[in-house]
Amino acid sequence: MTVSGRPAAELLGGRSLDWIDGAVVMVDQTLLPDRYRLLRIDGVPEMVAAIRRLSVRGAPAIGVAGAFGVALAVREHGADGLELAEAVESLRAARPTAVNLARMVDRAAARAGEGFDAVLAEAMAVRGEEVAASVSMGEYGADLVVELVERPQVRAMTICNTGGLATVERGTALAVIQSVFERGLLAEALALETRPLLQGARLTTWELARMGAPHRLLVDSAGPFTLARGQADVVLTGADRIVANGDTANKIGTFSLALGARYAGVPFVVVAPESTIDMDTAAGADIPIEDRGAAEIGSVRGVPTAPENTAAANPAFDVTPAELITAIVTDRRIIRLDRGETLPDTPLGPLRTPS
Amino acid sequence: MTVSGRPAAELLGGRSLDWIDGAVVMVDQTLLPDRYRLLRIDGVPEMVAAIRRLSVRGAPAIGVAGAFGVALAVREHGADGLELAEAVESLRAARPTAVNLARMVDRAAARAGEGFDAVLAEAMAVRGEEVAASVSMGEYGADLVVELVERPQVRAMTICNTGGLATVERGTALAVIQSVFERGLLAEALALETRPLLQGARLTTWELARMGAPHRLLVDSAGPFTLARGQADVVLTGADRIVANGDTANKIGTFSLALGARYAGVPFVVVAPESTIDMDTAAGADIPIEDRGAAEIGSVRGVPTAPENTAAANPAFDVTPAELITAIVTDRRIIRLDRGETLPDTPLGPLRTPS
Repeated sequence: MTVSGRPAAELLGGRSLDWIDGAVVMVDQTLLPDRYRLLRIDGVPEMVAAIRRLSVRGAPAIGVAGAFGVALAVREHGADGLELAEAVESLRAARPTAVNLARMVDRAAARAGEGFDAVLAEAMAVRGEEVAASVSMGEYGADLVVELVERPQVRAMTICNTGGLATVERGTALAVIQSVFERGLLAEALALETRPLLQGARLTTWELARMGAPHRLLVDSAGPFTLARGQADVVLTGADRIVANGDTANKIGTFSLALGARYAGVPFVVVAPESTIDMDTAAGADIPIEDRGAAEIGSVRGVPTAPENTAAANPAFDVTPAELITAIVTDRRIIRLDRGETLPDTPLGPLRTPS
Repeated sequence: MTVSGRPAAELLGGRSLDWIDGAVVMVDQTLLPDRYRLLRIDGVPEMVAAIRRLSVRGAPAIGVAGAFGVALAVREHGADGLELAEAVESLRAARPTAVNLARMVDRAAARAGEGFDAVLAEAMAVRGEEVAASVSMGEYGADLVVELVERPQVRAMTICNTGGLATVERGTALAVIQSVFERGLLAEALALETRPLLQGARLTTWELARMGAPHRLLVDSAGPFTLARGQADVVLTGADRIVANGDTANKIGTFSLALGARYAGVPFVVVAPESTIDMDTAAGADIPIEDRGAAEIGSVRGVPTAPENTAAANPAFDVTPAELITAIVTDRRIIRLDRGETLPDTPLGPLRTPS
């Protein structure tokens, strides 16, 4: 079922996905910014397909989608058995790089024995926690940005989409930019378009325009040079997985921004909820990097950009080594890697709300 | 006049532009790889328009186009006077970053007093010199690559289009890749797509396919990470202007590749004819950087990629500092910046032909 033409706020209250009337309702992000269309998903195969084709995307958002998916699985297949196990595994494996998906699927699946209502309650809890985490990240992050940037008005560069569409509300890196903006301190957001799927051009500009924040769009390769020219004060990115030593997997292009930031002496800050931290993986070299195939490279939104059948490499993510990261901001703490702080040694603080 | 559907070799002998039957004939590069179409240009305004919209592009090629343009100007306006001066100035100013255009326009214009035949002869000399330079750069560059890369088969990364389309024949960085390939030493060329105008995706892959060389296409932001993963042995780029201290202006994204190469310990080599060297400019900060406007960023080949009227920054070039460049290869010498060699101190060698 498709619900077309209704403003976000009406059905989803500004969220990118939610559980409504016995099904998952989500914004179909593949159609933005041209069309705002909602998808209603009430089966596991449909949810797996939506995750794979990036109708729902962003590490926290696919974690929530995966948890809701387990509720759909239990409703269809019951509290145990092979079919349930297969359905859960298909959700878990829909995308490999972000740790949130497997983790939230496992968390919801752990309650399968208690039946559908318990699993749905767990998924709703995951959703609620992600919303609260976004608010808290915005507060911690905005405080850090004010501390790191000496100018009164901040020019913040970001890549991919890390806003409400990538989480449930507000986002990760973009939540920080939103908080800086709401405090009256944002000179400009510089959004990288984020080839191949253009999440920055299509989604981040759309979200920035919706919040009324001043912004400009850049091609990805202009990011490092723009930093070198002194035209941005901080780089803020999300994360698909942060591992124990602080190495961070994120959208392809993040590593190159980190190199540019380091060369320019600009702080480089990773923003992600605690749920994105994977202490079971030691270092970035151990993170699986999804290659999404040649089709995404040889065309843009369906228009060919290269001769037919051109071979391509398409690493969808890269790994930024901890040594290039100034700080990691989560919903519970700031880890100043530039000051030698580490993930294992930095205690959790309170979940914050706007002051 | 448009000459459609004839193979390159028939009319242009494999060249991207030439003087044929009283006019300039050029491949319309804006239409590649979908359509191979030739443009016949016999007036200065048409030539300025062709240069501006990038029907002809690449520093050496627009130098040749500019010199031919002066011949068109003298034919129309005579050997002196205000109209000639205005026509010459319009050619000179058609694009600001590459030094070749202004330089070759000036060189041809210096002979205006001798009349059309002398100016055309000068322009033909410019063309001939660029062809010979491409061959020589390929030889010098391939020798250097063999010296720098320890593997028996070379994986060479490149950005933008630096092949025969960017010069007259063979090219600059791509001429080196072609020479390495002709020596049987090319494992793979890795071509970056080169947003916003996709010269790598559209033109470089087309030229590599024509020469039968193995290649894969990458989005620009995947370049530095691919280097960090140890999947390329050398980066080869062209240049739009090399200034006295070795700083090099080239297509946006070049700087970010240089940062990636340095981080990965991979040699970064700039390939350009002597005509691209501008000893009158001291350092990269003095090079004008063309901003080509928001329209190129908010769309890809006519398809919108961002919400309408999204503001954008579009620096078409960046500047790579000399300290990140391993060596500069020209048609007359190799300058090993990594060994402390400099442009003023490195003598010219012979123009080379294939051994």
